[in-house]
Amino acid sequence: MKKAILIIQCPDQKGIVAEVSQFLYAYQGNILEVDQHVDEEMGMFFMRAAWELDSFSLHKEEIAERFQAEVGKRFQMEFKLHFNFPKPRMAIFVSKLSHCLFDILGRHHAGQLEVDIPLVVSNHESLRDIVEAFRIPFHHIPVTPETKAAAEANQLELMKAHEVDFVVLGRYMQILSPEFIAHFPHRIINIHHSFLPAFVGAKPYHAAFERGVKIIGATAHYVTEELDAGPIIEQEVARVRHHNTISELVQIGQDVEKVVLSKAIKYHLDRKVLAFKNKTVIFY
Amino acid sequence: MKKAILIIQCPDQKGIVAEVSQFLYAYQGNILEVDQHVDEEMGMFFMRAAWELDSFSLHKEEIAERFQAEVGKRFQMEFKLHFNFPKPRMAIFVSKLSHCLFDILGRHHAGQLEVDIPLVVSNHESLRDIVEAFRIPFHHIPVTPETKAAAEANQLELMKAHEVDFVVLGRYMQILSPEFIAHFPHRIINIHHSFLPAFVGAKPYHAAFERGVKIIGATAHYVTEELDAGPIIEQEVARVRHHNTISELVQIGQDVEKVVLSKAIKYHLDRKVLAFKNKTVIFY
Amino acid sequence: MKKAILIIQCPDQKGIVAEVSQFLYAYQGNILEVDQHVDEEMGMFFMRAAWELDSFSLHKEEIAERFQAEVGKRFQMEFKLHFNFPKPRMAIFVSKLSHCLFDILGRHHAGQLEVDIPLVVSNHESLRDIVEAFRIPFHHIPVTPETKAAAEANQLELMKAHEVDFVVLGRYMQILSPEFIAHFPHRIINIHHSFLPAFVGAKPYHAAFERGVKIIGATAHYVTEELDAGPIIEQEVARVRHHNTISELVQIGQDVEKVVLSKAIKYHLDRKVLAFKNKTVIFY
Amino acid sequence: MKKAILIIQCPDQKGIVAEVSQFLYAYQGNILEVDQHVDEEMGMFFMRAAWELDSFSLHKEEIAERFQAEVGKRFQMEFKLHFNFPKPRMAIFVSKLSHCLFDILGRHHAGQLEVDIPLVVSNHESLRDIVEAFRIPFHHIPVTPETKAAAEANQLELMKAHEVDFVVLGRYMQILSPEFIAHFPHRIINIHHSFLPAFVGAKPYHAAFERGVKIIGATAHYVTEELDAGPIIEQEVARVRHHNTISELVQIGQDVEKVVLSKAIKYHLDRKVLAFKNKTVIFY
Repeated sequence: MKKAILIIQCPDQKGIVAEVSQFLYAYQGNILEVDQHVDEEMGMFFMRAAWELDSFSLHKEEIAERFQAEVGKRFQMEFKLHFNFPKPRMAIFVSKLSHCLFDILGRHHAGQLEVDIPLVVSNHESLRDIVEAFRIPFHHIPVTPETKAAAEANQLELMKAHEVDFVVLGRYMQILSPEFIAHFPHRIINIHHSFLPAFVGAKPYHAAFERGVKIIGATAHYVTEELDAGPIIEQEVARVRHHNTISELVQIGQDVEKVVLSKAIKYHLDRKVLAFKNKTVIFY
Repeated sequence: MKKAILIIQCPDQKGIVAEVSQFLYAYQGNILEVDQHVDEEMGMFFMRAAWELDSFSLHKEEIAERFQAEVGKRFQMEFKLHFNFPKPRMAIFVSKLSHCLFDILGRHHAGQLEVDIPLVVSNHESLRDIVEAFRIPFHHIPVTPETKAAAEANQLELMKAHEVDFVVLGRYMQILSPEFIAHFPHRIINIHHSFLPAFVGAKPYHAAFERGVKIIGATAHYVTEELDAGPIIEQEVARVRHHNTISELVQIGQDVEKVVLSKAIKYHLDRKVLAFKNKTVIFY
Repeated sequence: MKKAILIIQCPDQKGIVAEVSQFLYAYQGNILEVDQHVDEEMGMFFMRAAWELDSFSLHKEEIAERFQAEVGKRFQMEFKLHFNFPKPRMAIFVSKLSHCLFDILGRHHAGQLEVDIPLVVSNHESLRDIVEAFRIPFHHIPVTPETKAAAEANQLELMKAHEVDFVVLGRYMQILSPEFIAHFPHRIINIHHSFLPAFVGAKPYHAAFERGVKIIGATAHYVTEELDAGPIIEQEVARVRHHNTISELVQIGQDVEKVVLSKAIKYHLDRKVLAFKNKTVIFY
Repeated sequence: MKKAILIIQCPDQKGIVAEVSQFLYAYQGNILEVDQHVDEEMGMFFMRAAWELDSFSLHKEEIAERFQAEVGKRFQMEFKLHFNFPKPRMAIFVSKLSHCLFDILGRHHAGQLEVDIPLVVSNHESLRDIVEAFRIPFHHIPVTPETKAAAEANQLELMKAHEVDFVVLGRYMQILSPEFIAHFPHRIINIHHSFLPAFVGAKPYHAAFERGVKIIGATAHYVTEELDAGPIIEQEVARVRHHNTISELVQIGQDVEKVVLSKAIKYHLDRKVLAFKNKTVIFY
């Protein structure tokens, strides 16, 4: 089914739901999903509406302009209009750890992710075979402190050439530069292997072991300039015990990481994530 | 803040959200929450809208009639209009186990439940002291096979005299008659001490022990004529191990029971539960 | 590190831990793990002890006999002696669904499962490519009501030829005959896509949808003659909501299934599962 | 059933389990539970053994000395010997929030906690009525910066007079002085309303709201001089969403707090917690 999805944010005021839904109704839109959220602290209104496109009397290309003229302007809305076609294009960046990558490829192979994966980029060679078994091109771009700038330039060119919409860091062990990040605002999803804000930075499983926590976790978030501080999309945890070694924490944690990352990708694909300042609204 | 809450169900069709929100907007309603759900299998539409009453230009008493005339009739809606005042009145039925009762009384004492509790009814005397310490009247109505009909008549009189809106069975160890249930359709909440539909009936913890399950649970549901088969409001589980005795299962389970029951009461009070056929829509 | 693992069951009586640990100590065994469980209902004692083999003064081949003579006989023990080498050999049976299979292959590829996988057997061709990308032989053995007996004979021959120790049914959509099962007592692990004993049999996600449950689950168990009734090894659940379609329940459930199955495999490989009558003791 | 419980820690070496269990067997001890843990990093061995006292041939008063002479000395053990009688004596410190207090009192009333509660201490009057309804003495000791030292002296006197074994801080909003803490090493249990080490210090729910986390939690730990940094006994979490206000986070969190605190009390009472350096071993 062809769908349109409208994501709106604006200062809170009366009549928004009425006017938006009236607009869709006026052009024969059959609303499939509608969600709204008022952030009272910030005085902001957030809304997401999805409707069937086939019966809609406005042409795909006219919708944004009409909506701006008839509704958006009056409420000072910032809005984005998405369609569920063509499929978005996602690049995956990995290093040596395979659990997130395989989990994504497995779901994609099973038809559960409505996305195209034009390429996988890695700073190591080791995962090439499996990626290519899934018939996805694999690009090995080594990164050293000296070559980092050139490597990122190379990566950006590939993103452009493959018309990549968003990037998933599936345990990619390199820190992206602010310049790279600026090309994909709220369009780079990272999985951090701790329950943020606990254990920011490197080696969170070691830190969790030292502190003697009884629960570990993982956090999927959009990447911003500040390390591990971007808007959180999803989190999950798992119980651990005193007898678990660091290596067992790593294995238990990886099961959490892959599930959390895949959920975040799904929310992002379904246009269910609204990021505003440093938080997210997730309409699931 | 004074609020009105509208709960709607009708056959699914275009324009419902638009017309309902337009109605509220036309009379200056500031929408606080709006949720909708389409059950595609049944072709049914469900909606819940809450708005501020102070700025609303219709009088409290006019709303239902006007809504029916202007919107409801056209879409063949069944709807209920609620206000968050006066507080609903809840009776609690218990036997000897205290964990659910104390949990509810504790929350009520802490101001977390917007409800009046005019009485607690029990077929035993044992919990009188604590109930009365919370300054709530305690009625001891013994029940035997012979006195059951009379006891229920007595209970119903009390319900009427205290203008009880709904009944909570906090581990009340008696089965209510269809006649009693008929007085409170979808207004009796029971906590069953298993993860339904597993272990229907008596002694679910014994059955769980026998089967060697690794997880136990509890289910809050509306009471209908068929035992343990009413619409499920909430469920939760807890992990158990091979070394747990039945008595430990009971204790672990009771922690789940009390949390699940209190959640169900809260959803019911906030008018977030829409029961239809044998299922519930919960807008949390 | 080379390890020996002793699994014991016997009628409960005094002195068992003392005598077993004294036996290991007498021959210079460095105990790594020791766990015990008394089932008071059945009057049974269960124990698991693991120790380093390098410093042990008994030869690998002598241990069982000496233990029987010095300890086992006296306490009427049934015991099994395992070593963590050579690796056990596991066959995976699948149909068309890939999520469990890919999850296992991914873990194996990452070096997290101490097991050899000599073959994957399927009644369909569709998963051959990926399996072979992991360099594991794939055997397509179609099964129809007419060919079932021949197919099982074929499968059993393969099991024998590949010296398979245990079989994992990773959503294998065929019911194995009692004859097949008899070859692998408590050595066939199945994943059932519900929280047993809820929703036994086919189409549990449909049944869960119909009943309107708020939580779904999955169960890994040893296969016995009675369908879905064997000893439960592991269970896990996930929360669902009224708006989830059956197809969403399936996806949410698959995430649970694959994690539960892989945990069960890990417990089995680590010799942490003691199955007795229809229950398991799991020393994790 | 009268039980003895032995808690041991010593440098790891061969033969400990054998010698300890042999000691118990030699004096006719029927072992009920035995658990051990080796911390390989620290080279430390931890053990807990519980046995029936009735059939034990050593007198209660002799056990410690004999054990030290026959086993402890040789392995340089630090050990503690506990009995499950008389019941330990627990003081509860609270401020105005009632959820943890009521939860503990409810369990105690239901006979689930093997403990005497000689008194509740509060810096406010507000919870007196309910505490006294449970027939437990309530002591109001106001605390201001000026009177803090005197108040603590008063509290310590009460602890002494009532022979208090350990103290539970059930959301007690005062920081205890190092002097007070020194009287109860690893015998003061605090509940912190966050998933430590995330959100140390005051107002963790506000901090969680600001950061936009998707999961909140609570942590029960032993109190040490460093704020919120003592050994963690138990942790649990709950899922939250973007629409939850801070006041909703508080309510959701309180359900977690009370369950976690009661679990920690139960582990402590059952002598299942071994605290070493800044971590705990929990034999549950």
